[in-house]
Order: sequence, then structure tokens, then C-alpha cells
Amino acid sequence: MVIAEVDASAQKVNALAAQSQACLHNFLHVRRQTLALVAPLSPEDMVVQSMPDASPTKWHLAHTSWFFEAFILKPFKADFCWFNTAYNHLFNSYYESVGPRHARPYRGMLTRPSLEEVKQYRTYIDDAVQTLVRTVQCETQLQQIMALMTLGIHHEMQHQELISTDILHLLWHNPLRPTIYPCNSSSTQTTSNLTPLRMIDFDGGIVSVGQNLNADNFSYDCEGPAHNTLLQPYRLSNRLITNEEWLAFIADGGYSNSLLWLSDGWATVQKHQWQAPLYWLEHDGAWQQYGLDGLQPLLNSAPVCHVSYYEADAFARWAGKRLPLEHEWEVAAQRQAIEGNFLEDNAFRPQPSDSKVMTQLFGNVWQWTQSPFSPYPGFNAQAGALGEYNGKFMNNQYVLRGGSCVTPKQQLRTSYRNFFYPHHRWQFSGLRLAEYQ
Amino acid sequence: MVIAEVDASAQKVNALAAQSQACLHNFLHVRRQTLALVAPLSPEDMVVQSMPDASPTKWHLAHTSWFFEAFILKPFKADFCWFNTAYNHLFNSYYESVGPRHARPYRGMLTRPSLEEVKQYRTYIDDAVQTLVRTVQCETQLQQIMALMTLGIHHEMQHQELISTDILHLLWHNPLRPTIYPCNSSSTQTTSNLTPLRMIDFDGGIVSVGQNLNADNFSYDCEGPAHNTLLQPYRLSNRLITNEEWLAFIADGGYSNSLLWLSDGWATVQKHQWQAPLYWLEHDGAWQQYGLDGLQPLLNSAPVCHVSYYEADAFARWAGKRLPLEHEWEVAAQRQAIEGNFLEDNAFRPQPSDSKVMTQLFGNVWQWTQSPFSPYPGFNAQAGALGEYNGKFMNNQYVLRGGSCVTPKQQLRTSYRNFFYPHHRWQFSGLRLAEYQ
Amino acid sequence: MVIAEVDASAQKVNALAAQSQACLHNFLHVRRQTLALVAPLSPEDMVVQSMPDASPTKWHLAHTSWFFEAFILKPFKADFCWFNTAYNHLFNSYYESVGPRHARPYRGMLTRPSLEEVKQYRTYIDDAVQTLVRTVQCETQLQQIMALMTLGIHHEMQHQELISTDILHLLWHNPLRPTIYPCNSSSTQTTSNLTPLRMIDFDGGIVSVGQNLNADNFSYDCEGPAHNTLLQPYRLSNRLITNEEWLAFIADGGYSNSLLWLSDGWATVQKHQWQAPLYWLEHDGAWQQYGLDGLQPLLNSAPVCHVSYYEADAFARWAGKRLPLEHEWEVAAQRQAIEGNFLEDNAFRPQPSDSKVMTQLFGNVWQWTQSPFSPYPGFNAQAGALGEYNGKFMNNQYVLRGGSCVTPKQQLRTSYRNFFYPHHRWQFSGLRLAEYQ
Amino acid sequence: MVIAEVDASAQKVNALAAQSQACLHNFLHVRRQTLALVAPLSPEDMVVQSMPDASPTKWHLAHTSWFFEAFILKPFKADFCWFNTAYNHLFNSYYESVGPRHARPYRGMLTRPSLEEVKQYRTYIDDAVQTLVRTVQCETQLQQIMALMTLGIHHEMQHQELISTDILHLLWHNPLRPTIYPCNSSSTQTTSNLTPLRMIDFDGGIVSVGQNLNADNFSYDCEGPAHNTLLQPYRLSNRLITNEEWLAFIADGGYSNSLLWLSDGWATVQKHQWQAPLYWLEHDGAWQQYGLDGLQPLLNSAPVCHVSYYEADAFARWAGKRLPLEHEWEVAAQRQAIEGNFLEDNAFRPQPSDSKVMTQLFGNVWQWTQSPFSPYPGFNAQAGALGEYNGKFMNNQYVLRGGSCVTPKQQLRTSYRNFFYPHHRWQFSGLRLAEYQ
Repeated sequence: MVIAEVDASAQKVNALAAQSQACLHNFLHVRRQTLALVAPLSPEDMVVQSMPDASPTKWHLAHTSWFFEAFILKPFKADFCWFNTAYNHLFNSYYESVGPRHARPYRGMLTRPSLEEVKQYRTYIDDAVQTLVRTVQCETQLQQIMALMTLGIHHEMQHQELISTDILHLLWHNPLRPTIYPCNSSSTQTTSNLTPLRMIDFDGGIVSVGQNLNADNFSYDCEGPAHNTLLQPYRLSNRLITNEEWLAFIADGGYSNSLLWLSDGWATVQKHQWQAPLYWLEHDGAWQQYGLDGLQPLLNSAPVCHVSYYEADAFARWAGKRLPLEHEWEVAAQRQAIEGNFLEDNAFRPQPSDSKVMTQLFGNVWQWTQSPFSPYPGFNAQAGALGEYNGKFMNNQYVLRGGSCVTPKQQLRTSYRNFFYPHHRWQFSGLRLAEYQ
Repeated sequence: MVIAEVDASAQKVNALAAQSQACLHNFLHVRRQTLALVAPLSPEDMVVQSMPDASPTKWHLAHTSWFFEAFILKPFKADFCWFNTAYNHLFNSYYESVGPRHARPYRGMLTRPSLEEVKQYRTYIDDAVQTLVRTVQCETQLQQIMALMTLGIHHEMQHQELISTDILHLLWHNPLRPTIYPCNSSSTQTTSNLTPLRMIDFDGGIVSVGQNLNADNFSYDCEGPAHNTLLQPYRLSNRLITNEEWLAFIADGGYSNSLLWLSDGWATVQKHQWQAPLYWLEHDGAWQQYGLDGLQPLLNSAPVCHVSYYEADAFARWAGKRLPLEHEWEVAAQRQAIEGNFLEDNAFRPQPSDSKVMTQLFGNVWQWTQSPFSPYPGFNAQAGALGEYNGKFMNNQYVLRGGSCVTPKQQLRTSYRNFFYPHHRWQFSGLRLAEYQ
Repeated sequence: MVIAEVDASAQKVNALAAQSQACLHNFLHVRRQTLALVAPLSPEDMVVQSMPDASPTKWHLAHTSWFFEAFILKPFKADFCWFNTAYNHLFNSYYESVGPRHARPYRGMLTRPSLEEVKQYRTYIDDAVQTLVRTVQCETQLQQIMALMTLGIHHEMQHQELISTDILHLLWHNPLRPTIYPCNSSSTQTTSNLTPLRMIDFDGGIVSVGQNLNADNFSYDCEGPAHNTLLQPYRLSNRLITNEEWLAFIADGGYSNSLLWLSDGWATVQKHQWQAPLYWLEHDGAWQQYGLDGLQPLLNSAPVCHVSYYEADAFARWAGKRLPLEHEWEVAAQRQAIEGNFLEDNAFRPQPSDSKVMTQLFGNVWQWTQSPFSPYPGFNAQAGALGEYNGKFMNNQYVLRGGSCVTPKQQLRTSYRNFFYPHHRWQFSGLRLAEYQ
Repeated sequence: MVIAEVDASAQKVNALAAQSQACLHNFLHVRRQTLALVAPLSPEDMVVQSMPDASPTKWHLAHTSWFFEAFILKPFKADFCWFNTAYNHLFNSYYESVGPRHARPYRGMLTRPSLEEVKQYRTYIDDAVQTLVRTVQCETQLQQIMALMTLGIHHEMQHQELISTDILHLLWHNPLRPTIYPCNSSSTQTTSNLTPLRMIDFDGGIVSVGQNLNADNFSYDCEGPAHNTLLQPYRLSNRLITNEEWLAFIADGGYSNSLLWLSDGWATVQKHQWQAPLYWLEHDGAWQQYGLDGLQPLLNSAPVCHVSYYEADAFARWAGKRLPLEHEWEVAAQRQAIEGNFLEDNAFRPQPSDSKVMTQLFGNVWQWTQSPFSPYPGFNAQAGALGEYNGKFMNNQYVLRGGSCVTPKQQLRTSYRNFFYPHHRWQFSGLRLAEYQ
């Protein structure tokens, strides 16, 4: 029946229109979220780079915009020309052939273009993407564009988290210890409600992990292919390790007992003279913790945060346990809804748990796993510049799972694999314990 | 029957005596092998340290002796006293609390004790161990001693290989390009017999890997526990990658195409300006290769050697393949006898293969795998100083399999896991390709 | 006569009042000059530190104000309290005991206080100093205050020059090559008027150099005591070395001939791969030079600028000459008025000379001398924190003479000794030749 | 008269023959002295390099021989060919164009040629030089050869001192603290005889310093030209500063008071955590000093040794004095015979003085002066490779005067200028105080 066919076709068109509408809505929402996040920052805050691993806020604002310009506007917009050709060099993090290894530490030199110009760039990109989506005729193109927009949205959410971690690192170097996000939490220092640490049993056997890369929902290439793996029976702790437990590790000489540490970890501890997590300060015998809400007394019952893999691993050894494998965590997480203390909660700090069951799988702090960031069986990096996204980092880094209090909730998936070097501490990273049965 | 019981007991005693006899025999054999290996070296050759990763030959000679003194004579010898108390500090590589990270680069400062004194130390240790084994009364003690001797013998064989790799690295810095072991091989430069590279199928599924640590035969703690793992169907190349194939990689710009490299690998290539494997020299357009047998023309058909993990990984990507997982290799190796070009063959260089079947699994060059050196499920480091042996290195390093032309054959097992950092090139390391079916 | 005495006293009072009036006038003039200098800069430009040797503009603005607060308001103001106690730590460059070596590279982390707050700080200091001078009763105190104000004014002029050199270094790292001070000079590229280089004779003998430290006019402690020294008969070139002459040095392989260089200089050239002065860029075979007025074609006849001592010394050797001793320069300069291309000329670049006589002794570029920055006979550093001003730098640095196009003219004296490390190039430094007769 | 003329000519010939005889005698004497000096060292001691600033003994033995081969045999010997062409690369310290900066730290890699081969090289050179001198016909050539031999002899004596300082530095890293030269000195620890420190007056005025480079007696190019300089009236301490006085400096917090130090000196102290002179060890509250005669109790009355310029300068400031100018020292030294504790005294340590007059001007320890190593008026470096000898080091180094207990006495002159970097401590360097009248 012709009519039915027309209907089906019309339905399909309508569905696509609705999809593109939703996609645009999400795009604008995330783009606005980024600006809301940086609202309390001054132009001066946004230009400085505190270390090569971190980037200035202004660079994040521009780079996320460049991503849409380079990967969507450039291939799909008629009569495309760059907003500013220089930006393609300044805000491009993929341009290996011009030597990003050298360029990266110079991101903090970019006092110009000004914040105002970068904001104009953002507005221009937002408008151009909207116009493109609304005017593109070809359905195939529209679908390609939407797929790239989704990637760009997730890319921008990653940078939202990096904005938080990088600005915290910068302001940490300021003796004035400024507050970015005034905290209204009445975090009364009580540990009475803290759930006792328990180890919860999980069966071993063949389990399915990873993300089907052809599925409709978005995921990064490194999350797939979905595949089977074999786990031994294991146990995970019912909650994250707390500051109070970390204080016991310190008190027991954890930072000065070489037998607890990996060889490289011990060398790192010695070199940097680590004696506590990053952002901890001792003052008259009491510990304080610097955060986006300024300098606060250390909350004993909150999850420990800003520890490196080396520290997490040493703690686990000290506790007679180990760190989880990433798939041990994933199997546990598959049974739960993605709920927790995320960026949208505006807490900006890990929060205690008083639940008696398996808890804190998502949010609060990224959880170090024992698993090196390696390719899944059958992994193939995407072709072209986007192929540099994850694959080339599959070396010397460790997988973290679960998201943190500065991760946008939409960003998280059960299969999401975050990864950092084992000496990194400026991310919101903590740990959960594991052991074999 | 009483008589039978006595017989059984006597048999047991005899068996133990035979065992201890064999153990002593092996001990003396390996100890002598070490001295034979260093015979062509002068006292001056044996004292210098070419880099922090390497140790002087004299240090290896003394350290392997100290191992027997510290772990066997000290606990078991009546009226024990150190041969020289200073040696316990100088030749102890386990003494973390005094800061080996700093001490290690100073091994090359030890012009004293002299080589002569170190040789006397070796003789003293050999005699004392023999006397101990022959006079110890308690069976349990004898069994403990034999277990530790076996560990010490394997430890010494590891250092035999390190003596070869470290002395080669030292002499490489000498513009005279001296020859250590004159080579009598008539390695005529013919590639006609070279086996074409073929990818051979292996089934996936649950496989058993690793070593049962309670078994009678020796293995290191990191080789166990034996356990099951799940493999996807895969293929391995029938032989090692050759110098000729590496030349094609170079000619195709392999060292200057960032897209082929891991991010850290690319940074390493840039920093050190690598353009060929270690010990390769180009002279008038022809490649030569420095080795323990001096400077030789590059043999096209021989396995490529002295490449880092980063280079092996980049080559595999260039070839459209990948490096094997360590257990993919292990399953293939379980089907074969341990035969190949080992230290005892006195070739001191990798040799070509002309076999048409799966070949070169053992000997020639250590084969980089894609597998980070991680603990097996249920791994627990040994208690005490010996626990520092392997566990603390399970971080940032990669597993190599199969042994090399400077590995004592007795040292190798199918489950043997060697490990080095991904930038290391001074070991005899090469590669075999893999892919998923 | 009583009346006459009263008159004399009144005269003295009036003279002091006039003096303090003039001093205040100068103070406010220099303070305003500083703000005028930074007017074209954005808050973002003013917060970033491009290298440990340089400081952010905002830090200069605050530090020069702190100087008046710490050395004048604190000792002399009744009911003194710090504008902000934190500033005493943040903007104090003399506080050795808390480790400035570590603090210095972190000056660029100070995104807060904001530029606005620093400007308020400046206004507060300006007002407080004015009020103090106008209200202080005790003549002795007023004289002490004026002496310290004069020091503070000269200190601020030094930082005016550093603001120029440091901001130029920062913006050099920005690929956009921004222009700070639009240049209205019609520097037509003609070399026809260039004065030929001639060597002018000066007698040797005992000469008087340095500044009488008890004299009324201001000078730094390191400029005295005035003393006699013995010079051999010598010659100085009639003008500064030009870009054109430097191009000849480059063309003759000056940067690659080790025999022209000091040993440490050659190592520096090799390490940094220097091939031209700082801020020179070659584009399609033509040289351009970056400056505060942006990227400009290289003016052949202008004095060469931004060369290190090592380069200046190598050039002189290449030319068969040498660098002047500081007192050879001083004797020549004693005969001339202090006139030249200074900050107030708003040229921001060295300018050619067309004079036929001894010229360009002042302004344009600081002239490297062969003289290490050493104490004059009888030199004693001032007591207290101000004693750290110059004396502790009398080591490993070389004296430069004459001021530059970004030096305030009032800052210069014939006896003025500037000093920098021999590898430094970010100052406006050039050279004049010398030889013995 | 013809006869008289012949006589004169014959006399001249005889005088030359006697001269060449004496020169040869001296040559052989110094060459043998070198071998005597290294007699207690093993081949292993002689091959290791303890830091880039130091060289292995074997390298010194070969390099001093190469000097005669390159500068005498090569230009003057008929049918010259190198003893071993490779040696011209290995033992040549002047070959800038192949990058000595990189080569230098690799001197310790030269395990081959063996010590035995290097000794054969020495014998060959000794024989060849003797033969050449005895057979050369041309008088002009003979005179040129003798001039170069004298330079070579002095060059070798410099290296005799370096052999002592470098081997001491190496053995310092050996926890066994070996003794090289057993000491028979009965240095009883008495301070009763120590001469009190007095400051002795010297007139100022125009003085003549430096060496007439055309004179018959040998001197290095940097010691001339002889010239006049103007000194202010000054005082020098009657003896060197002692260990006891240094202990008072330490006890008074000298190493932790930044106000006593030059800026670069303070940074160096902080970086290396200096708390006492090099080779001092505290054990149970008592100080010991390592030397070529092993570990000995610190002798209070002996001159302090192994201090850097930075330390000497800080001590002088602490004592309210300063370091001498090099010519203040030279004027005082011109009045005295060159006598003191030199290498030939076999003390290998600085010795106390009990003289009441100006003493210890020569020998014991090199005396740091306040004078940077700069060219004298009219200095011109020699042409060719020998011109690299001193001139290129006239930068960043300080002059030391007087020789030490490991300087051959024949090596010293009143005009002799030794020079080292201000952070260097491995030379036998101490100090004498000065002040202006």
C-alpha cells in the first residue's frame, strides 16, 4: 500500500526530526552547563596552566568548541571557513605532527585570544551547529552529524570534569586557598552512621562485559567490543575506603614501609615525599582538605580522594586485600542503577554512605582498578584523527571505574573506562577493596 | 613388617641423598658456567656500569654468591659469620630500607673488592654450600636447603643472562667495538630459505595456564597459581619477525609516523631519536649489527633483536596485526618441546629459521607480548625478603616469553614470565605477530 | 642675630618642604608611568609567567607597591597594619628563609588577588605614602622617608623595564604574535646612512670610576665606592653592532664554529640550538623580528638586540676584537650627556645611528661588558633586607652598561651597573666592540 | 776571527745539547713520577669515572701520552704514523667538533684498551720522543720540540694532580673507604702550637703582576702578559683557615644562614644539602676526614680543604672579611720562595703551620680568590688546537692560587692561575682571608 509506505516514510522522517531535536536540545544543555560551571571563575583563573597534565579553563572552553568545528562544521557545512584559522592550531589537541608533546605545556601561554573572544567563538559554534542541524537535507548526513554531535557532547562532558580537576589543582598553588563553589552542605563530622566495611561475595565464571559498539546508545571505542571473560569467585567491599581508614594507614607508617609498595610506587613516594593524599594539609595536629569549596576540616566518614594508584595499591596490600579487576567491578555495577554523588549534585566533594548494602558504585570518586588500560579482544581504533582518541593511551595507565562527584551523570556508563597514570593524584580518585574467595 | 618399613625409610634416605647429590652437581655446574661465561672479560671490563639499569659483571658474580650466603648459609650454617660483613651491604639488591634507588647507580663505583677477591668469595661460598649439604643431619632442613639452592641456581642463571646483556651494553659504548666471543658461525647472507610468514590458527576457549606452585619442579612465584583463562580464537605467526621485515618498516617511515605509535612510545622515539633497533649501525648505506661476537653485517633472515615494546607494538600495527597475549603464546608453547637457540649453543645471536611449521617459540629472542606484567588470580608474594623477588615489579612492565640466545636452556619453562619496561632495548628482545580470527 | 637664625631655619624648612614636594611629585609620576605602561595589557596578559626568570605583570605591579609598604609605611606610619597580610608573603621577593627559589616559579599561579584588587592596592599605597609625607613631623624621619622613596622610585623604574622584557617574552610564545604598542615609526629599510664602524682611541692610566655613595644624588650600593682603577690604552667602536653585521656573523657560520666560543657558551649554543638572536624568525629567506610593536622586518641598520653574553663574546672574537671592560665604557660615557633612545621615546626598539662621532653610549640596548659583576674595592652590602639587593648577585653574572629602549631615562647613570647571567637573552642586550691599542 | 766564531758556534751547539739533555731528563723524570703515583692502584681503580668532571686514571695516563704524540711526534717525526689511530679519538680532549660535551662522560666506558696496552703506549711514546730529540738535526726544530716538551711536561704534571683528585673522588663512593697511600705522619691532634690568625698589612699602589710570555721560563698563556694593576691597601691573613675555624662556622649555623651566601651559592647549598666540606663524615659526634691515606680523625689545626668557592666566600663573610683578589695574593707571594707541602712531600693532606710569619702561601691547599678567571690585558689565545688550552674557560670560573699537597712543586709559579667553577669541591681547595685597610 502506497499510503502506508508514505506513512512509514513520514514516520521515519518525524522520528528523525524528533531525534535531531532531542540531540540539539542535549547539545545546548551541555554547552550551557559548561558555561555555568566556569561562571565563578575570573578571566585570570581561566588562563593559567598549573602543570603540563592540566589545561587552562579557557583552553577547555575553546577546544571543546573546536571539536564541533573540526569534526562537524568542516565536513558538513556548505561554504565552510574557519572561525579563525589560528584556532585550528591553538585548540587542536590531536595534531601530533606539529609536536603536541612540546605544545601542550604552552597552553598556559595563551593570554590571547581573550576569554571574551573565546566566548564569542562558543556562541558562533553553537549557532552554526544549530543552523546546520536544522537545514541539512540529506538524512544520511543528518545521522552522521548526530552521531558526531553525540561524541562531541560526551567529549565536552569529559572536559567539564577536567575543568573541575584542573582549576582545583591551580588554585591549590595559591596560598590564599580560595573557594570556588561555596558549599551549603552541613557536613557535621559524625562517624556514628558509617557503614562497617564488609566484603561481599560474587560468583566467578564466564561473564559478559563491555559495550556492543553497534548499539544505538553512545559509548567510546575502548569500551568494546562486548565480550566474555572468565572471573574467579571474588569479593568486593560494600563501600569505598574512607578518610578515617586512610588515617589509620598513615598512623601505621604506611607511607614509610617499602614492603607495602610497588617498586615504582616506592620510588615515586620517595621522590615526591608523599605523606598524605593530595590536597590534605595538617595544621596543629588536625587535618584539613582543600577542595572546590575551599579549605574544610577532613570528614572522617567521606571516601578518601586524590590518591594515586600507587597509594591505593599500597593501602590494599596493607589491608590484606587487593584492588578489584575492572570486570569484577563491572559485574557488580551491572546490577545497579547509575545513581550517586555526581556533578549535578553540586557537592563537589565525596560524601559518606550510610547504606548497609553494596553502595557507592557510582559517583563520589573514581575507583582505581588493578587492570591496566589494555585493548579488549578485537578492539580496533577508529580511522582518522578521531582514532587517536583512546587507543594510543593503552599503555602504562590503569582503568578507573564509577565516576566522581565532578563527573556529569549523563557521562557515566557501567562499561565506562576512565584511565590515568599510576602516579596521578589530581583526579577525584579513591578506591574500593577486593579479594579472591 | 618391620623390615619393609626400614627399607622404605632407607629408600627414602637414599632418594634424598641422590637428590641432594644431583642438586649439588647442578649447583656446581651452574656456578662454573658463570665463570666460563666471564672468562674472556678483563677485570676492567667487569667493574664498569654503563647505565643504572645494568650492573657490572663483578657485581653479578658477587651478588649471586651473596644470595647463597644470605638465604642458605646464614639461616642453616652453624657458627655462621659473614665472609665479609661489608659484602652484605655491597652485594644485596633487596635492602630497600637503605635506599637501593640511590645505591643502584653506584654499583659501578666498586673498584674494590677486586675481581680476585670476588672470585675467592665465590670459591668460599661454593665450598661452604657443599660442606653444608653434605653435613646437615636434619632431613627437613636438607629439603629446605635444596629448595633454596634451586632458587639460587635459577637466580644465578637469570644473572648469567644479565651478564651477557649488560656487558654488551657496556662494550657498545667503546668505539673500538670489541669482540667478546669470537663467532665461528658461517652465517652466509642468504634469505632464500627463509620461511614465508604465515598466520596459524588457534582455538579459543577456556585454557589452563600458569604453573602449579606446589608441584615438585621449580618455578617463580609469579608463574602461578595455575588457573583457567578464556581466550578468543586467534592466530600467531609461524616464526619471529626478521631483520629484513624490520628494514621494510624503516623504509616505510615507521619511525616517523606518529599514528603507528602508542602515545608514550612516540614520546620516547622523539626523545631518543630512535631510527633503528639498538646496536644497529649504518655505514655507507649498509647496516651492521653489534653483538657479543663484534660488529657483523646485518643478517636479513635472522630475527630482529633489541627492540623495545614500543617498537614491537608499532611494527605490529604497521603490519595490520598485534602482539600476542602472553597466554596465547603459552598455549602454543605447551604443545612443543623447549628447543631452540639458547646460551649453550654459543651462537650469541638470534639465528634464522627454515622450518615450515610453528617455530622459534623458544630461544633466539624474548618475545614481547601485549600483556602487562600483572598478578595471576590468587597470587601472593612470598613472605620476607624473597617476597620482593617479583611481586613489586607488577606495574608498568610487559611480559616477554620464550627465552633468548643468551638464556640458559635449563632456565626456561613454558610458564616462564620475563618482564621489562616498554622502553627497554638492551635485552635480547624481538617479536612474533598475532591477530584475532 | 636671632632673626637671621630663624630665617635660616625657616629656609631649611622651606627647602625640605620643597624637596618633599618634588619627591612626592616624582613618586606619583613614576607610579602613573607604570600604569600607563601596562594600559594595553589585559588581565589575562598580566597573570601568566613565561619562565622562572620572568614575572607576571600583575606581580610587578603588586611587588613595587609592597616595597613602599614594607620599607616606608611599616617603619614610619603610626598604627600601621598591612593592607593584606597575605600580600607580604605573596609579593615579597626578599624573604629567603621561606625559600624563594621554590616560590619564584609559582608567581604565575597567582590568579588571585585579581588585577582589580592589585590596582586598589596600588591606590591605597599611593594615598598612604602621600599622607605620610604630608603629615610626618620629624625632619629626620622625613629625610629617611625621602631617601627610601627615592630607592623605591628607582626600584619601580627597574620593574618598568622588567615589565617590558617579561611581557615580550610571554607574548613571544603566542603563535598569534600580538602587538602591544602599535609603532608609528616609519623605519624605512635604508642602510645608506649607517655610520661606518670605527675604533676610537682612549688613553689608559689611572681613572676615577664609580659613584660616591655619600653624594646627594641617588645610586645603588653596587655602584660605589668611587675609586681609582688602572686602564691600558684602548679603543671602543664608535657605535653599536648592527643587525646587518650580525647577519654577516651568521652567514660566516658563527653559530657553528666552536673555536669562536667560550666553553660554556658553546655548550649553551648546542643545548638550545641557537642560530640567531632571540625573537628573530626566518620566513621565506627573510628575517623578521618580534617586538613590543609586533612582528616587523629586520632593520639592518638597527643595533642587534636580545643576544646573550656568549653570543656577544663570540661575535667580538669573530671580529678580531673583544668586549669592553666596564670601566673602559664608563670613562667614555663620563664625557657625554645621557641622551638616547629610552622608554620615554616610545620606540620600543633599538634605532639606527647616523652620527659620525662616538654615539649610542646610552639607550637602545644594554651593552655587554667583559667584566664579571664583582664588588668594588671597599664595597659593603647594606644591613637588613635591603642588603640583599645587589651584593648577593655578585657571582656568575656580567655587567651591562648604558640602558636600553625600555629603560626609563631617569633610571640611568654613567655609573649604573646592570647585570645578568651570560646565557640570558630576554633583556634588550647588544654590544659595542673594544680592543687594546 | 774565524776560530772564535767556530768556538761560539760550537758553544751554542753544546749549550743546546745540554739543554736538550736536561729537557729529556726532566721529561723522563715526570713520566716516571706519573707511573709511581699510580702504582698502588689496580686496573679496576683506573678505569672507572666517578662523575663527568673527573676522568679515569687510565685515561689520564693515555691522554698525557697522546699529547706528546699529537703535538710533537706528528709534526716532527719522519714517517710518522699513529701508535693506534683509534687513540687519537679516544684520548684527545680537544676535539670539539665531534662533541666532547657528550664524549666526556663516556671516558669511564673505556674498559679497553687495557691498562697494559696503555702502559705499552706510554713506553712507546717515551722511546719515540727520546729518539726524536736525539736524532733531530735542525736546531730550530729542536728548539720548537723542546718548547713543546716543556708544555707537555707541565701538562702531565697538571694531570698528576688530577689523578690524585679524581681517584680520591672515586674511592669516596666506595663504602669500604680504602687507603691508597698509607700515611706515616704522626699527626698528633694538638692545637696548642697553632699560630693565631693575624691580618698582615700590604701597601696598595701600582704593582706588576703576571708573567712575561716571551721569557725563557715556562708559563701558561693565561699567566700573561705581565702588566701593571692598581691595588688598594689591603691585609691578608698570616695563614690558611683551619678545620677548627671551620667547625666554628658550622656550629654557628653557617650552612643554614642564607644571609651569608651568594644567591647562587645558597641555591647550591640547598640543592646538595651541604653541611660540611666534602669528604667529612660525622660519626658518634666526632668528625673524620677521608683522604688518600684513608679515613682519619679530623685534624683541627690543619687547613680546611675541599670547600667550594661558595663556602669559602660565605665563611669569609661570616668572619667579617673577604677572599683575596688574585693579585693581592700574587704580590704577597712574590716576596717568598716557593716552599710548602707539595706532592713530593708525600703527605697527601694539608698540614698545620706553626710559623709566626706570613706562611702557607704555597702548597697544602689551593686558595680561592675573589677574582673571576678573566683574560689579562692584551691576552691572546694561541692559534690552533693548543689555543683551546685556557682561553675558552675564561668564564664562570674563579682563580685559585698557591698549589696544594697534591701539586708537583715544579708545576707551581707565583703567577700560576688555577681555575675551577664556584661549586667545585673535589679539588684540594681552601682559603685565606683578606680585607681592605
